[in-house]
Amino acid sequence: MKRALVAICLTLFGCVLSSPARAQSPSVQSAEEAEIRAAIQTQSDAWNRADIPAFMQTYEDSPDTTFIGQKLRKGYQPILQRYQQSYTSREQMGTLTFSNIEIRLLPSGCGKSEIALVTGNFHLQRTTHGEAAKDDGIFSLVWRKGSHGWKIILDHTS
Amino acid sequence: MKRALVAICLTLFGCVLSSPARAQSPSVQSAEEAEIRAAIQTQSDAWNRADIPAFMQTYEDSPDTTFIGQKLRKGYQPILQRYQQSYTSREQMGTLTFSNIEIRLLPSGCGKSEIALVTGNFHLQRTTHGEAAKDDGIFSLVWRKGSHGWKIILDHTS
Repeated sequence: MKRALVAICLTLFGCVLSSPARAQSPSVQSAEEAEIRAAIQTQSDAWNRADIPAFMQTYEDSPDTTFIGQKLRKGYQPILQRYQQSYTSREQMGTLTFSNIEIRLLPSGCGKSEIALVTGNFHLQRTTHGEAAKDDGIFSLVWRKGSHGWKIILDHTS
Repeated sequence: MKRALVAICLTLFGCVLSSPARAQSPSVQSAEEAEIRAAIQTQSDAWNRADIPAFMQTYEDSPDTTFIGQKLRKGYQPILQRYQQSYTSREQMGTLTFSNIEIRLLPSGCGKSEIALVTGNFHLQRTTHGEAAKDDGIFSLVWRKGSHGWKIILDHTS
């Protein structure tokens, strides 16, 4: 019995010793940042071929996902519908570019980065505006890493 | 030696068994939310007595703390200076009220809520405007719980 407990003890002790530290290594951080930058690229590529459902896949499919533009919209479906109503043609969507993108990973108490803050600017190059008149702006995004990878859970664009 | 290891083992085993679950209990969530609501109240009280340094204490004192208004400002000191330059009198600061405040706690992989998203609207009741002309708007805040309690690390107000 004692020998078994010692074995469990050593196993647990090994686990404790090898548990992730609060700070992540630079390479892990770079990998997380690279994943987020790839998701942002995928998102702008989808926009630039006027594929709103693909563009929306960068958001977490949840009723809590929130978009703040002129007003607050909550839920994946209402956000998708807002994009589809505001942008009705490829000309109106134009060409989207991002600039000044900064990514801040927020390591949790147990060492993993599950939340990231992303800030930046957007520009839409287009000739037809429709309801969605804003060509330039600034955004802050909260991303969360879940089972489907990094997804946006809060988008504030102004 | 074996007895000591068994003691360590039982201690560690106890720790493992009592480690927090991923989901927090409603009462813990309510307590966290209550702390954030109290901090928001303290912040608006400070604003309404025109005490900008006290108002700023709701932000994390870090060079990474970010405020997005017309443009992005990074760092506690630059944000403090922006408030002090934009609001130079009690009349100009007016009376601040918040509405539609929603708090979303984001539990980390190890069960603790260290990040919270807060959205809402603000209104400034005042007669003198100066440089800071915006009386009504919408905001999203990212809060983080650290050694000094819940603090804002990202404020986007539009």
